[in-house]
Amino acid sequence: MEIIKDLGRLKEVVGQVRAAGQTIGLVPTMGYLHQGHLTLMREARKRCDLVVVSIFVNPLQFGVGEDFEEYPRDLTRDAELAGGVPVDIIFAPPVAALYPKGYNTFVEVEGITESLCGCSRPGHFRGVTTVVNKLFNLVEPHVAYFGQKDAQQVVVIKRMVEDLNMNLEIVTVPIVREADGLAMSSRNVYLSPEEREAALVLSRSLTTAGELIDRGERDARKVRETMVAMIEGEPLATIDYVEIVDLANLQPIDRLTGPVLIALAVRIGKTRLLDNKMVGVNNV
Amino acid sequence: MEIIKDLGRLKEVVGQVRAAGQTIGLVPTMGYLHQGHLTLMREARKRCDLVVVSIFVNPLQFGVGEDFEEYPRDLTRDAELAGGVPVDIIFAPPVAALYPKGYNTFVEVEGITESLCGCSRPGHFRGVTTVVNKLFNLVEPHVAYFGQKDAQQVVVIKRMVEDLNMNLEIVTVPIVREADGLAMSSRNVYLSPEEREAALVLSRSLTTAGELIDRGERDARKVRETMVAMIEGEPLATIDYVEIVDLANLQPIDRLTGPVLIALAVRIGKTRLLDNKMVGVNNV
Repeated sequence: MEIIKDLGRLKEVVGQVRAAGQTIGLVPTMGYLHQGHLTLMREARKRCDLVVVSIFVNPLQFGVGEDFEEYPRDLTRDAELAGGVPVDIIFAPPVAALYPKGYNTFVEVEGITESLCGCSRPGHFRGVTTVVNKLFNLVEPHVAYFGQKDAQQVVVIKRMVEDLNMNLEIVTVPIVREADGLAMSSRNVYLSPEEREAALVLSRSLTTAGELIDRGERDARKVRETMVAMIEGEPLATIDYVEIVDLANLQPIDRLTGPVLIALAVRIGKTRLLDNKMVGVNNV
Repeated sequence: MEIIKDLGRLKEVVGQVRAAGQTIGLVPTMGYLHQGHLTLMREARKRCDLVVVSIFVNPLQFGVGEDFEEYPRDLTRDAELAGGVPVDIIFAPPVAALYPKGYNTFVEVEGITESLCGCSRPGHFRGVTTVVNKLFNLVEPHVAYFGQKDAQQVVVIKRMVEDLNMNLEIVTVPIVREADGLAMSSRNVYLSPEEREAALVLSRSLTTAGELIDRGERDARKVRETMVAMIEGEPLATIDYVEIVDLANLQPIDRLTGPVLIALAVRIGKTRLLDNKMVGVNNV
């Protein structure tokens, strides 16, 4: 495994691999790897000749007052974990290599970026699509892997790839959870033991929503209200959003039908956590 | 020569050529080809195994009230001219193939798109960078060719390619002029015989500017004022802008030094025409 920080060296490797007709799989991450990331890497390993993991805490996707500075970073630990998969390359460029002086180009998906996380984090997805577009151009992957935990991000990136006619496939991998149900996230490290316990309300509310739907509930408002009441019952939790949306366009729906995304963002103390559940509602 | 309208067929050809290790040259145009376009194609022909000319009148780069509907189109004539170079492929997709229902992704270069043409045509360069980004992803060229006549467009596209780490080279080709000095443009067809004569004031003002600088003038304001007076002396001409800018960042300059761009947009009757001159000012 090689750790590459230099763009020129990366292009050299990518050029050689592409010229040899081999396939490239990319797992874009912000590092501080957990089992969710490792699952993505293992999927890439099964299918691609060269597996590249990018580790880059992207300043462009953090808003003012967000946790760009505090975001956990540990390249030594990450290299050990990624090496165990194993991956072939860790691409960990410095910020100035991706955003040099005079940088001025942005990729933006409109519409579907305005709801959910786009509402509470304006500019966030513009930062995501810009850096992911750059990573795709740099690594030239045949396949790129994203976790379903960031459900809106997946929809937005698929839209960018389709709209801009980018020549690669996006593969998504289901949420990986701790034994007690908490969705894995690099930000879980921020949680105190008390907050860690309180954070279980996210996955529990999704489980309850699933049970309601299984029992025949088709009124999205009722499902949502049950979830909101559960989360509000947890003193350490503050809701950012709880939404039930059409998986295709991320617009809120009233009646549960077709492929539906139940998505939530909740602050536990100061830590903003995401979770979601996809439901294929069968109305027959 | 093959005329391709279908994205799937284009991808098939591009995939085969890339897999065979051959080089691809792209000349993006809006059609109604003239000698300027043909010069770009000949440059591509010298260097690339596969030469693709795209012909696409891009609605996204036209503003409300601009000439998207009237823009001249003649694929039969274009195919004959391109076939004479010869090129290998004309890629002429329908609008709905590049912008299907639900299309929502845009590429934007900020800063350098706000002056000159960006000032009088808000949104224009966003349309240009978005479609050029798509064409680059579709055709996967090793080299793309642009005319120096659209000087700001060249600077903007080079910035996009560099910022987004796109893996291709941009080559620019000098302005091709009619015998009397008029810069070639598909829009010249709009001109009446009287307007055609009046339009010579653009190139004449640039020649005069060059002479002033050759004789030692270094005050950009004086050069500009001479040009403005010349153009205002032509009754059919209305100035959109006459600017003397730093070639690197397109910001107006006071003292002529280093690589300078003298750029102008002038309406002759209803037809908006561009012209420009690059000057490497030696102050020694």
